[in-house]
Amino acid sequence: KTIALLPGDGIGPEITAPTVELLNELGEFAFEEHLFGGVSIDAHGTALTDEVTAACQRADAVLLAAVGGPKWDTTDPTKPRPEQGLLGLRKALGLYANLRPVRPVPALYDASPLKREIIDGTNLLVVRELTGGLYFGDRGRKDGSAWDTMIYSVEEIERIVRTAFQATRTKLTSVDKANVLESSRLWREVVLRIHAEEFPQIELEHVLVDNAAMQLVSNPTSFEVIVTENMFGDILSDEAAMLTGSIGLLPSASLGGDGPGLFEPVHGSAPDIAGKGIANPLAMFLSAALLLRHGFAMEAEASAVESAVDRALADGLRTADLGGSATTAEAAQAVLTNL
Amino acid sequence: KTIALLPGDGIGPEITAPTVELLNELGEFAFEEHLFGGVSIDAHGTALTDEVTAACQRADAVLLAAVGGPKWDTTDPTKPRPEQGLLGLRKALGLYANLRPVRPVPALYDASPLKREIIDGTNLLVVRELTGGLYFGDRGRKDGSAWDTMIYSVEEIERIVRTAFQATRTKLTSVDKANVLESSRLWREVVLRIHAEEFPQIELEHVLVDNAAMQLVSNPTSFEVIVTENMFGDILSDEAAMLTGSIGLLPSASLGGDGPGLFEPVHGSAPDIAGKGIANPLAMFLSAALLLRHGFAMEAEASAVESAVDRALADGLRTADLGGSATTAEAAQAVLTNL
Ligand SMILES: CC(C)[C@H](C(=O)O)[C@@H](O)C(=O)O
Ligand SMILES: CC(C)[C@H](C(=O)O)[C@@H](O)C(=O)O
Repeated sequence: KTIALLPGDGIGPEITAPTVELLNELGEFAFEEHLFGGVSIDAHGTALTDEVTAACQRADAVLLAAVGGPKWDTTDPTKPRPEQGLLGLRKALGLYANLRPVRPVPALYDASPLKREIIDGTNLLVVRELTGGLYFGDRGRKDGSAWDTMIYSVEEIERIVRTAFQATRTKLTSVDKANVLESSRLWREVVLRIHAEEFPQIELEHVLVDNAAMQLVSNPTSFEVIVTENMFGDILSDEAAMLTGSIGLLPSASLGGDGPGLFEPVHGSAPDIAGKGIANPLAMFLSAALLLRHGFAMEAEASAVESAVDRALADGLRTADLGGSATTAEAAQAVLTNL
Repeated sequence: KTIALLPGDGIGPEITAPTVELLNELGEFAFEEHLFGGVSIDAHGTALTDEVTAACQRADAVLLAAVGGPKWDTTDPTKPRPEQGLLGLRKALGLYANLRPVRPVPALYDASPLKREIIDGTNLLVVRELTGGLYFGDRGRKDGSAWDTMIYSVEEIERIVRTAFQATRTKLTSVDKANVLESSRLWREVVLRIHAEEFPQIELEHVLVDNAAMQLVSNPTSFEVIVTENMFGDILSDEAAMLTGSIGLLPSASLGGDGPGLFEPVHGSAPDIAGKGIANPLAMFLSAALLLRHGFAMEAEASAVESAVDRALADGLRTADLGGSATTAEAAQAVLTNL
């Protein structure tokens, strides 16, 4: 089985190396490493070359660390930007469904900004539409104005809503801004129809995005699965990530195409701590677990990684982002020991 | 001085009545009450009639409670909706600047979902652009798709950014999604230019909206003033509101036109508790304080209301949303006593 490996920028390479070690403990994989993001801009003038796109399409799964950094920050629309690689790859692989599970670990309740009684029992999944909306709509500048377009077709809404219903046991929360946006009104109509026709046994609620942003903080246990469009999902999943106290712990899976899925941590490339050997590799390990589960149907191995991470944390493992001083190498060792 | 009074729907009338009493203690005002929102739809088929628009334009300030409710919820674009009144009035009065101060009250730290050490010292202002972006861009449906347009002109960005800089003592945080959106890249360019040309002594930082959603929860004291576009501001200001433990405490001021400002609580019409006499009137009182301050330059009276609310809370006043059992009337009495 081939895994296309995209270490990317900043702390990316540091957290990729121990993840390869971890995966090698669990199975036989062929890793193919490629330049992606800022490092690809430096080498080839573009964040994602056609060769890398093709290599990812051929692979059985794609494991990505993080891209971006101040070096490539620009508001000049003619300059290449690392994020274009990420967006281009999502689109090229047809990854319309981004799954972000948020499950605060009891051992880390103290690291959360929220009170223990608020987070206790939180176990939610954000299902974010990933290849539509403001991210891919028409955009441009004209006469001193700039615009972006939030556009959704019925088919785009249907497929992500089905993915979300399928991931739901009892209650699905659909988040929109139907009191203002036309695309949200279409979204809500499609959600209502798919619910009635295909998933009537699942409880469905509609929550406006501003209200959802409040409830995620005040009452996170009220959510099981949240489904929403691309931009709202970007904001809400990062907000939800904070419930755990650190985004250094959160993995994501991007699925949907006929080809491989893409697995990556929710956090960014953290240029401020890059190269110091202190980055938290756990979100990357948990992304590898999602790769094993969703990419290769290796459920036992996926659970083993998740349990090993939980135990390492319960044993007191704390990297800098969690208020501790463990290095990347120490964190990796702690998880491997528990595996 | 004339105040156009728009009680609106749900709990609106219940929280408006004691606010009129409160204002009558502090000065001589002529109140003109108008139908607005759902009740206006019922009476006139539209959430905002031309007569009410004209009356608001003539007034010296507009005090609004809340609009909306399940009765008027619809995804049918041809049906009138209460929110259209709100959006129409903001546009008609040219209210491009929405100010939402968030200052958790020590007496209520226990009501906050956040840990005391996280919220302690939070004192931030969200400056939200209110008459542009996705709320007012071109929208529609075609061939099974629906779209909305996030559009900003240089002038629209300049004026809100100036308002925000003027409200800042030391540090302004501009929130955008410049790594994806063209309108955000224009936003960032204008912010940088206005900063360099007009406010070089103020510290400026740019934060991506997903990151801002995290930091508001994990590190709210890092913000002084946040400026952002309409949709992001809607989401982030409601999220920030939660820091206080209840949006029943948060006022807002919408300013910018040549005419009157509009003052309203951040919370909605709470149809579930309407008519029970248990709604929390404090956000409405604090909106009246903002009206006195920004609308009539009555700083002493504005501060008096704010102090009276603080003292009532310190004395133990708790409405249902704050975990207590005080009625609207008891809450109003507690504040009046402290005035
Ligand atoms: C880097 C950026 C383009 C990206 C996004 O907004 O999708 C990131 O924030 C994410 O959530 O994966
Ligand atoms: C009711 C709705 C249209 C409105 C908005 O989104 O602006 C409200 O949420 C607000 O923040 O004042």
